[in-house]
Amino acid sequence: MDKITLAHGSGGEETHKLIESLFYKHFDNDILLQKNDSSVVDRISGNIAITTDSFVVNPIFFPGGDIGKLSICGTVNDLSVSYAKPLYITVGFIIEEGFSINALEEIVKSMKKTANYANVKIVAGDTKVVEKGKCDKIYINTTGIGLIKDKSHIMSKNNIKEGDKIIISGTIADHGISIMTKREFFEVDSEIKSDCACLNHLANDILKVSKNIKIMRDPTRGGLANTLKEIVNLSNKSILLNEKDIPIKEDVQNFCEMLGLDPLYTANEGKLVCIVSKEDADKVVEVMQENGLGKQSKIIGEVIYDTKPNLYIKTELGAIKTLQMAQGENLPRIC
Amino acid sequence: MDKITLAHGSGGEETHKLIESLFYKHFDNDILLQKNDSSVVDRISGNIAITTDSFVVNPIFFPGGDIGKLSICGTVNDLSVSYAKPLYITVGFIIEEGFSINALEEIVKSMKKTANYANVKIVAGDTKVVEKGKCDKIYINTTGIGLIKDKSHIMSKNNIKEGDKIIISGTIADHGISIMTKREFFEVDSEIKSDCACLNHLANDILKVSKNIKIMRDPTRGGLANTLKEIVNLSNKSILLNEKDIPIKEDVQNFCEMLGLDPLYTANEGKLVCIVSKEDADKVVEVMQENGLGKQSKIIGEVIYDTKPNLYIKTELGAIKTLQMAQGENLPRIC
Repeated sequence: MDKITLAHGSGGEETHKLIESLFYKHFDNDILLQKNDSSVVDRISGNIAITTDSFVVNPIFFPGGDIGKLSICGTVNDLSVSYAKPLYITVGFIIEEGFSINALEEIVKSMKKTANYANVKIVAGDTKVVEKGKCDKIYINTTGIGLIKDKSHIMSKNNIKEGDKIIISGTIADHGISIMTKREFFEVDSEIKSDCACLNHLANDILKVSKNIKIMRDPTRGGLANTLKEIVNLSNKSILLNEKDIPIKEDVQNFCEMLGLDPLYTANEGKLVCIVSKEDADKVVEVMQENGLGKQSKIIGEVIYDTKPNLYIKTELGAIKTLQMAQGENLPRIC
Repeated sequence: MDKITLAHGSGGEETHKLIESLFYKHFDNDILLQKNDSSVVDRISGNIAITTDSFVVNPIFFPGGDIGKLSICGTVNDLSVSYAKPLYITVGFIIEEGFSINALEEIVKSMKKTANYANVKIVAGDTKVVEKGKCDKIYINTTGIGLIKDKSHIMSKNNIKEGDKIIISGTIADHGISIMTKREFFEVDSEIKSDCACLNHLANDILKVSKNIKIMRDPTRGGLANTLKEIVNLSNKSILLNEKDIPIKEDVQNFCEMLGLDPLYTANEGKLVCIVSKEDADKVVEVMQENGLGKQSKIIGEVIYDTKPNLYIKTELGAIKTLQMAQGENLPRIC
């Protein structure tokens, strides 16, 4: 049998076989293998951070990643930018009847590999199967639990002030454009890779070198502009970006122009943006550049004085534009 | 605008409005309202239990509950039967484009009410929207975190022994039959209610009165037989059930016969089954009967000596049958 059937989601014999032969086999660890209704983990000494995310990306395999890798990275990253060390992840699969078991195994192996890289354990899971046509191949929910050792960072967004620098860890819009070029209706021969990656080690490097990280974020489905606009709203401070400093790959830029997409609003899945005190900015960029995922880290703007909080960009031609939060659907099912 | 659009899942302006007007409004608590990529919860002193479940039930509203109530109860129950006090729940929505915002609000209110009953906080959430036809109205993932104060119970399934009693908290198969009678292709005028309920207070009552609870479970999609068969496999002990003692409502029994379903393999969503030492069984039944959710609690069988582990049932006619794990699809999308 090489296809998922409704019986795999019934909770009976077939479900158990699938769990044993696929999930327990690849995700094996002492906690998952308790095989209970809940998994009991070790005591956690410190504050706990919790985050959840569902992944419905289309297509499920794309250059640079797949829905499995994405589902681990996404949740690891939400914890990492919240100053938490990711520890445990749960996985909920919703699978369409008829889905290939081989493809499922590829996804599971990719999740395992990514979890290993990020040093997190997959501790609990659930599988549901829906009839053909009631889901698009596979959707995955991951929920993550992390440990915050040092709570002092948490409220630091209140300390964002004039002169603070905005740093990004590399080129923008790679993920969104990678996905777009692989959509079925598209016929382009592109190998633009998604930047899909786990940022926990990079976040850790940053926190080691500076006590003045005001906020960290991983700009995903709404793009860099959306994330910074959220920070503007949260902090009540204005930000001015320099367009010429924002790293973007040439082919990504070309595709954006061709498709009429603004790279500032196009998804990333492995980029970290942070706001750092003026004094610490250079050493933070330096340590980021030493990490494989931050080689192209750059200061791309700063917090400015303004009568009301806004996000601005100075274009390459020198004009100042105000950036709003993304409106409309942009790119559905990008993650 | 009264329908969910793809823009509600894009992470931009519309997503934010939906989150503010619906999720923050109803699920309001200090943790969720941190509005961060991860939510930071209080320190937890003790072992932590984690569980995850996705809900794809069809129909989404049914007598006795809805997908929202079910999604909270299911996760609360998985924690409760693992001796954990449920504390925090995360919620991941996957919604079909065109879904009614009013229906979504009904579901959200139902989740809130159920969470209040169970005394859990909804601390993090995520919303994805997929194109019409790529999901059936709405799917919900809930992940729960609970506190285990007394770890002594955890390995107690190893202590299951001959003479221990099997207790169930009430009638079986109510949920499965309730759902079946409401499926579109069905034309029956039935008001059989799902038993969908949070069992944490009941589990708590049980643990207060006995130190000899060997195992607790909430038999869901595979029915009572599947759950007990899992226990048989885990514990390597045999169980003998008495069919005449297993509570079942007359109309549920009738529907099972009409539909050719075995109630032992039909889903429950608010029943607790436990294995208790012979000495403590009566007082456990007594305390369960005092709880509104356990009024019809009964001893339905016992652990017996056998050369190899099996699940047996003594039928009303006196014959002994062996029960296997459920095979095939039984009832898809029952939860």
